[in-house]
Amino acid sequence: MSEARLPDATLRLAKERLRRLVAQPSVAADGRAIPETAAAVAALLAEEGFEPELHATGGAPVVFAQRLVPGAPTLLLYNHYDVQPEDPIDAWRSPPFELDERDGAWYGRGAADDKGEIVSRLTALRLFRERHGELPFGVTFVIEGEEEIGSPRLSAYVYEHAERLRADGCLWEFGGVDAAERPFTYCGMKGILTVELRVRTADRDLHSSLGAVAEDAGYRIAAAVASLRDAEGRVTIEGFRDGIMPPSEDDLAFVDALPDEDAELAATYGIDRWLGGRAGSAWKRELYLEPTLNVNGIHAGYGGPGAKTILPATAVAKLDMRLVPDQDPEAVRGALERHLGRHGFGDVEVVPLEHAERAARSDLRDPFVRDAVAALREVYGQEPVVHPTSPGSGPMHPFVDALGVPVVALGCGYAGSRIHSPDEHVRIRDFHRGTLATLRLFERIAVR
Amino acid sequence: MSEARLPDATLRLAKERLRRLVAQPSVAADGRAIPETAAAVAALLAEEGFEPELHATGGAPVVFAQRLVPGAPTLLLYNHYDVQPEDPIDAWRSPPFELDERDGAWYGRGAADDKGEIVSRLTALRLFRERHGELPFGVTFVIEGEEEIGSPRLSAYVYEHAERLRADGCLWEFGGVDAAERPFTYCGMKGILTVELRVRTADRDLHSSLGAVAEDAGYRIAAAVASLRDAEGRVTIEGFRDGIMPPSEDDLAFVDALPDEDAELAATYGIDRWLGGRAGSAWKRELYLEPTLNVNGIHAGYGGPGAKTILPATAVAKLDMRLVPDQDPEAVRGALERHLGRHGFGDVEVVPLEHAERAARSDLRDPFVRDAVAALREVYGQEPVVHPTSPGSGPMHPFVDALGVPVVALGCGYAGSRIHSPDEHVRIRDFHRGTLATLRLFERIAVR
Repeated sequence: MSEARLPDATLRLAKERLRRLVAQPSVAADGRAIPETAAAVAALLAEEGFEPELHATGGAPVVFAQRLVPGAPTLLLYNHYDVQPEDPIDAWRSPPFELDERDGAWYGRGAADDKGEIVSRLTALRLFRERHGELPFGVTFVIEGEEEIGSPRLSAYVYEHAERLRADGCLWEFGGVDAAERPFTYCGMKGILTVELRVRTADRDLHSSLGAVAEDAGYRIAAAVASLRDAEGRVTIEGFRDGIMPPSEDDLAFVDALPDEDAELAATYGIDRWLGGRAGSAWKRELYLEPTLNVNGIHAGYGGPGAKTILPATAVAKLDMRLVPDQDPEAVRGALERHLGRHGFGDVEVVPLEHAERAARSDLRDPFVRDAVAALREVYGQEPVVHPTSPGSGPMHPFVDALGVPVVALGCGYAGSRIHSPDEHVRIRDFHRGTLATLRLFERIAVR
Repeated sequence: MSEARLPDATLRLAKERLRRLVAQPSVAADGRAIPETAAAVAALLAEEGFEPELHATGGAPVVFAQRLVPGAPTLLLYNHYDVQPEDPIDAWRSPPFELDERDGAWYGRGAADDKGEIVSRLTALRLFRERHGELPFGVTFVIEGEEEIGSPRLSAYVYEHAERLRADGCLWEFGGVDAAERPFTYCGMKGILTVELRVRTADRDLHSSLGAVAEDAGYRIAAAVASLRDAEGRVTIEGFRDGIMPPSEDDLAFVDALPDEDAELAATYGIDRWLGGRAGSAWKRELYLEPTLNVNGIHAGYGGPGAKTILPATAVAKLDMRLVPDQDPEAVRGALERHLGRHGFGDVEVVPLEHAERAARSDLRDPFVRDAVAALREVYGQEPVVHPTSPGSGPMHPFVDALGVPVVALGCGYAGSRIHSPDEHVRIRDFHRGTLATLRLFERIAVR
């Protein structure tokens, strides 16, 4: 099978559009260039014949566009126009907000995550029309501007506009090929809850000679954190697992069918030993289907060279909990607080951070999932890897729950895209294939 | 009783000498001005008729001076000429290395700790001779230059020179009045062991979606630290208490007689509650006579604003253990390592830091201790507070052990001297009284 390619003129237009979007430093964390980038995305939608709307959210606007076809299915396309900060800027080989083509790839912040995907989808729509005329099914774009800060307003937006967002399937913001260059999709995400634990034991650090009688915030935070899980990773918070929906037969079968990645990841990250001695197939069910509690950071007192004999007065730990269906982040936070109180850590304050999402999983037997998998198979010429859920988290739950649609991830990325890092890029080869897979999905929906 | 005062000319000379010493920025941590300061101290000793020697140690030299009187007792004076770093320099109201007199005090780095004490002792010697003629007892000075970095070579020095350092009593480097303006002395110190615990779980931080199967260095360090003690402060390392000599009847009686300081310290430091709900008398025995394990610092992963969903690859904790007689720091370190191995923390590395000292306690019934207490009582006009040991640590063990002498602390400090901080100072009133108390001790030894 010859390698899938877009027509030259189509690729040139796509590159020019991506150049326009990458030039906008739409860093959500700083609120930089947000209205300008929303306008630039709306302009691209208008160039494709849509009548885009900017929907106020209280934060960055959602760029919304829709064309429905009565009686035909509707496809919802979710993307985001904001990007991660460009730091450390010195580590970039070309300026982060100038698209640079080299070594068969397009470099720039957002080239992969997620501006390249926006352009790819518009390119697939344009090709469909060039080849088949007007779309015989409905399309709705929801392109938000706060994904990189945890999509704090997206869930409310989706529930509020559920009537207008009604659809038969949702294309997630990105996809592509995995570390072994296999095309993949995933049809669910874990939920997440991020919190900060804070302890204060005095107004200022004490000399550690008082340690026999005074509290030590460093010990308090360590003991509080250690009480939350065991060395095998099992969360020991009473009530943490309340409401968990056991994985379906399909979930288990699809997870068991996933390729083993443990040896590959161990080599990439220099990991000697997996948690609890796990490996291979035992590893996969836990990675994809079990909830976890992770220590993202823990800090108290002195950290410089040598010794400093103090009792730190304050300490902090940052945690994330990855949740599975149907854990409720609010209920989990309550259980955490009760656990701390019951175990003698009533002085440890729980401060919610930005991330609180429920997990989502799609029905893997839905025709939309099958069409997407078939489209990937046709374009990549090999069997796609279908993850019933990502081990990661994202704002997928409102789409699955409020709209009742299956969600599939499909796009132009690869494992080396360096998203969130310097020298982020999309390989042009992946742009060709991801765009053509999207086109094939459109063609399959068109003939339903 | 009228307030004790030095003659004006004596005070003027003392101030001039302190000015000379404070002008030397002898920061041990940087190795700054160490030979110059040793020479300046030697010059002061020579001005008082001694023939000082600079003893090589492999690090900063010890300034040694001695005049023995055959058949008479000998007094050993231990001090140090190095100082703490002056940072943060902007917080000083006058330059740290220029003596400034204001508000009845002498300001400058080392004015209290410990250059003021060196000058005070030379001043007391000078006064003795002016009033009584040549000293009828022996005097030995040991003035080291590495106290502020943990006296790493002092113990070896004392054991090596034990024959020449033989004495009947040792005056410790500082003393004065406590937070309630009561004269105090202490006659022992806790030992100490400082270590760093290190964990590495991967070559670089992982995305926390891998938390179900990958180790998290943040959790590992928290769990390792939490395993070492309980919430009441009791150390749970097997073998930690091996060799502990129970407190003597005198130790207990003297500790029980100490004034309660818990309310005062709680107010000063903003402490709501003491460890395990301790207070008053229960508090004192533990503060002075029990060993402890303290977390001076713990650090892993993200500590900035908001959330960052990573599994940290490395983590570190800094610990100090305050030891009592006869705990052996080396044995304690071995017990710590075995504990970690036995409790599933074989991946946690134990790195010794600079401090490792055994505890020391003097015989409280020795005539030298009684003479020192009597001298304080006479000069201050009130009953001194006698601590059988400081809750802090210092290099006192080799003096008590190698030389077999009791040690007492006596000097010119007060609780507000801001040692180790900006605006370090000695109150001139305390200089008068501390110097006269030293003189009274000399006079008592002279008539033995």
